[in-house]
Amino acid sequence: MRVVVALGGNALLRRGERPDAEPQRRNVLHAAESLVALAAAHELIVTHGNGPQVGVLAVESASDPMLTRPFPLDHLGAETQGLIGYWLAQALRNAMPARQVAAVLTQCVVVADDPAFDKPTKFVGPTYDEATARRLAEQQNWTVTRDGDYWRRVVASPEPHRIVESETIRMLTEAGVLVVCAGGGGVPVIEVAGELRGVEAVIDKDLTAALLAEVLAADALLLLTDVVGVESDFGRPDSQVIRDTTPSELRARTFPAGSMGPKVDAACRFVERTGGVAAIGSLTEAATALAGTTGTFIHR
Amino acid sequence: MRVVVALGGNALLRRGERPDAEPQRRNVLHAAESLVALAAAHELIVTHGNGPQVGVLAVESASDPMLTRPFPLDHLGAETQGLIGYWLAQALRNAMPARQVAAVLTQCVVVADDPAFDKPTKFVGPTYDEATARRLAEQQNWTVTRDGDYWRRVVASPEPHRIVESETIRMLTEAGVLVVCAGGGGVPVIEVAGELRGVEAVIDKDLTAALLAEVLAADALLLLTDVVGVESDFGRPDSQVIRDTTPSELRARTFPAGSMGPKVDAACRFVERTGGVAAIGSLTEAATALAGTTGTFIHR
Repeated sequence: MRVVVALGGNALLRRGERPDAEPQRRNVLHAAESLVALAAAHELIVTHGNGPQVGVLAVESASDPMLTRPFPLDHLGAETQGLIGYWLAQALRNAMPARQVAAVLTQCVVVADDPAFDKPTKFVGPTYDEATARRLAEQQNWTVTRDGDYWRRVVASPEPHRIVESETIRMLTEAGVLVVCAGGGGVPVIEVAGELRGVEAVIDKDLTAALLAEVLAADALLLLTDVVGVESDFGRPDSQVIRDTTPSELRARTFPAGSMGPKVDAACRFVERTGGVAAIGSLTEAATALAGTTGTFIHR
Repeated sequence: MRVVVALGGNALLRRGERPDAEPQRRNVLHAAESLVALAAAHELIVTHGNGPQVGVLAVESASDPMLTRPFPLDHLGAETQGLIGYWLAQALRNAMPARQVAAVLTQCVVVADDPAFDKPTKFVGPTYDEATARRLAEQQNWTVTRDGDYWRRVVASPEPHRIVESETIRMLTEAGVLVVCAGGGGVPVIEVAGELRGVEAVIDKDLTAALLAEVLAADALLLLTDVVGVESDFGRPDSQVIRDTTPSELRARTFPAGSMGPKVDAACRFVERTGGVAAIGSLTEAATALAGTTGTFIHR
């Protein structure tokens, strides 16, 4: 099977952990180990989130006195692709010394009139208390909003339309290279008079993973995160993990917009458009989630 | 011909320019334009420096209050590969819409007992006055040294031994993809018990470019920078550009260690080891430098 796997940004940096290099590299090692069995059995393409990481770089860039203005989000997203791509490529290669592994910088085309540009929804960066968040919003021209008990910056998250490097990714995959790509949903670009140009946004990495899986004619889309699966009634005592379901069943429910919502949407899109299967589950249960014995398995 | 082209980090950020995103992106556009004619006539592999860029990220990381300790240089190097790879891949693709262009994250193996680790020589980051440089050296455990009229941080610059992703780069090149790779000399890694592990260093990008050109069996190595060519007696009034020369003639002279020295060494190595040709010249004269009508042309 050809399988596109998306690793949650929060699986690389756990909630409450400081964004230091060492814990993230350690988490990536765990992620790589959990993919070894899959990579041996299937043709794998690995993608990943970058929410916490792009947020850290945004804060650093915003407080850099050498700069006239902070680096835009497309630039910072490209930096996180380099960083996380390096971590993942090195860890995967160390776990599978016989395999060629390559991280490919990936751009993803969005449209300039996407309504998302007027309504930022995607959390990036660290959590703040309300007062700090409001002060930073004022200083940096950020939009901030509540995320659970804390406040965070939110940025525009437009729809992914086209993956610029998809043919390169396909070529490498078919040649047996394990490709890490489309990190952070891809660097967001618009097309203006046939030219690509970066924009201030962060594309949802699960939606880009679904598009990548569709374009590469993958058999399965595997969305791995720090939860066991999709819950029927998140936050309620009688909530349970939905084990086996269809897009129409999932579409009839509502899910938290910032986290599980896009994952469910991405999984449903892939299944609806291609007839392939999708699974949402824990990073530590990658193989069983794909087999449908843990997590949430979605099929027609 | 197959040609490996190395772009100087200073060609992306000019001396005296602030390290803002916009001037760098503009400089990259010029660099891409100067490569279009070459890319149409030859099989091109593009690599680039990262000295100013990795230095900016190092300063940002060192002053980030969220971090327990600054990110190590291998991580920062990977970030610059993402950033500059994005700039270059986008600019080259916009200049040649029919071409596939891909930036590939590249690791380069060095050895742990390289004497360079005891004697940092490679400039990174911004320039400082002496007092500021000494204060930062104290605070951040940096080594600093004089660079012309200013002071700068210096880091270890070990010898490149092996390019981890060379087979992927070869495969893509042979399939007609214009590859951007080995940025900043590649992310420096050592091999420990068969596993790759990042180290605190910045490999000279021209030496890595020479190794890459050798491994890919390139016909030519083209080192582009912000000077017209190699000068016979740099800094003296009777100095002139050496137009046509051999490795043995160049080896008989001495060149500034921080800048032209490694370029001359890289060009000589490639010519000596492969019998190919090398050229050192201005970014704006890429095609004529390769043809040997501008810049410094080096052959057996």
